[in-house]
Amino acid sequence: MRTITIKPAAITHNLNRVKELAPTSKVLAMVKANAYGHGVAAVLPALQQADAIGVATLREALEARQLGWDKTIGLIEGAFTADEWLQAIEHDISCVIHHAPQLEWALEHRPAANSATQVVWLKYNTGMNRLGFNEQTIMTAAKLLHDAGYQLILATHFANADDHSHPLNAIQIQRFNDMLKTLQETVSPDIKGSLCNSAGIVNFSEHHHDWVRPGIMLYGSAPVIDQSAHELDLQPAMDFSAQIMALQTIKVGDAIGYGSHWIALEETRTALVSIGYGDGYPRIISKDAYVSVIDATTNQSYPCPVRGRVAMDMIVIDISSTPKNMAINSKVILWGSVPHVDEVAVHAGTIGYELLCRLSTRPERTLA
Amino acid sequence: MRTITIKPAAITHNLNRVKELAPTSKVLAMVKANAYGHGVAAVLPALQQADAIGVATLREALEARQLGWDKTIGLIEGAFTADEWLQAIEHDISCVIHHAPQLEWALEHRPAANSATQVVWLKYNTGMNRLGFNEQTIMTAAKLLHDAGYQLILATHFANADDHSHPLNAIQIQRFNDMLKTLQETVSPDIKGSLCNSAGIVNFSEHHHDWVRPGIMLYGSAPVIDQSAHELDLQPAMDFSAQIMALQTIKVGDAIGYGSHWIALEETRTALVSIGYGDGYPRIISKDAYVSVIDATTNQSYPCPVRGRVAMDMIVIDISSTPKNMAINSKVILWGSVPHVDEVAVHAGTIGYELLCRLSTRPERTLA
Repeated sequence: MRTITIKPAAITHNLNRVKELAPTSKVLAMVKANAYGHGVAAVLPALQQADAIGVATLREALEARQLGWDKTIGLIEGAFTADEWLQAIEHDISCVIHHAPQLEWALEHRPAANSATQVVWLKYNTGMNRLGFNEQTIMTAAKLLHDAGYQLILATHFANADDHSHPLNAIQIQRFNDMLKTLQETVSPDIKGSLCNSAGIVNFSEHHHDWVRPGIMLYGSAPVIDQSAHELDLQPAMDFSAQIMALQTIKVGDAIGYGSHWIALEETRTALVSIGYGDGYPRIISKDAYVSVIDATTNQSYPCPVRGRVAMDMIVIDISSTPKNMAINSKVILWGSVPHVDEVAVHAGTIGYELLCRLSTRPERTLA
Repeated sequence: MRTITIKPAAITHNLNRVKELAPTSKVLAMVKANAYGHGVAAVLPALQQADAIGVATLREALEARQLGWDKTIGLIEGAFTADEWLQAIEHDISCVIHHAPQLEWALEHRPAANSATQVVWLKYNTGMNRLGFNEQTIMTAAKLLHDAGYQLILATHFANADDHSHPLNAIQIQRFNDMLKTLQETVSPDIKGSLCNSAGIVNFSEHHHDWVRPGIMLYGSAPVIDQSAHELDLQPAMDFSAQIMALQTIKVGDAIGYGSHWIALEETRTALVSIGYGDGYPRIISKDAYVSVIDATTNQSYPCPVRGRVAMDMIVIDISSTPKNMAINSKVILWGSVPHVDEVAVHAGTIGYELLCRLSTRPERTLA
């Protein structure tokens, strides 16, 4: 059995942490990429106290509507075509407008006065250099949209908010605050602002503005480089587990797995675990990567290193530290409380976000 | 639009290549891990000329039965519990037996004489050191199973068949051939043999035995290190594509994306592409990674390097080499014919297998 267990209570706890950190801002909770791999259907009930959710594609927006989310949905890359813009109006979805074609669609096809699509997230490129109007074009865009009856939220996105000391942060904040002030003075005093993702919420509390947009911290991972999820009082919302399927003793000199890279220097008790990259466990991991094996009789947890290459359907772990009578079908935690997904990510040379998103459909999914 | 297009005709072509390479062997076609990420429902119709399919979990076996596969299904890690063994009997599934508990279940609960579960893949550990009985225990296992009425296929798995010159190959082949001969002489002359995965099919044609077990080559990736898929006349069975969602010109000195790692040394025409690690495109790629952009007016393909970090929902590419009027919504190929998934895998420091398996549910899926 390969199992992904989602913990809605952890997500609600983490949302409350966002509200503690940004008490005067509204919260747009990111559920894009199938709620960072957690499953949007499992996550939405835990986010009832958020003011809005954010998605990356119209399809994700429509899925959330079908699941009964009746509050604001923000489409954070906006419509990809004029037809998508019309569908956004039809389903009352609030869009980012980040480039000229989207501006044209918005001016050509206007939603009704009471529509959520009347609220537009106008994207300002302050240094990420992906989405957004620049200093020269954004004022015209803001004026045209305002004159067409849209309510504006000026939005930008940090490139390095995870690192408080990165010099670009101050530049992005300055550019954003200056432009927001200018637009409020020259276009409308009602224009709102939204600057902070999870990392910004933690690192730049004086710049939370009207809307914050937490993503990864809702799922219990640390959004900044100098504080752990535990230190930030964030609870992991996913347990990814499997089971021991067989036990073996490896003789001195024997190699394990593809490539024969790991060779036993002493007789080693190993266990075969029914998990692999075909489930979403990363194939490339360092020699420090480990899993936790649970002894069902004592409920004690034992860290066990992964030995040899991760294969599509199985891994081999060193269970030398566990009791001699460790049973077949014992639970093995790939990530959860220990190890935390952020720790596994370090051993995989990436970030927890990616591990969470790139899970396959093979593991069974349950709710805690 | 993010799209995964599966090409059943390519899979059938690749199956025929297996049959050309191993003309006297039966073929167990691997469809584990959702057919290496291709989707088992999309793949099974293309494998009608295979003698059997192989899966890693009972759940995958039952899914294939539900989809109408009525020929042999091999459960390549066998039953995980006694209950699973009983279910295997119920659904006529042929199991690997690789350790003592599975042997006990098989001896305790015997299928009817005409059941596919009567055929057992007895796993011999010749050097992979994952699954299998060893030299001391396998003869007893074979004798007990034979005496209980089972028909045996002795099976082992290569650790390094991708590298023809690896010294372990000859050792594994020798051990396997010796044991098969011994069992045929001492237990039953009817015992069959199965040694070769895709790499073995290509590299060790003199050792194909009764059953070959192709996996990755069915999907059009090269199973060996010294010949490309093209050289082996294997056709990629998946096109993974997205679209240009916005165009931008990056000024000298501007950085792109998270971490601000890529900085423009000259004014650069870039495009934002609606794909990211939330779809399954790998987050960690080398500076040599590229995608193909298709000009819809000429149908010409342009290689475009990826710039800056891969994000959850988008990447930025350098479109300097494309026509000046490249349109929004132009098709972008992440992998397919060019680049081949094996090439992307090199840029991601892994193998194509992993990229194929770790796709998320976000891209839409179609058949070519």
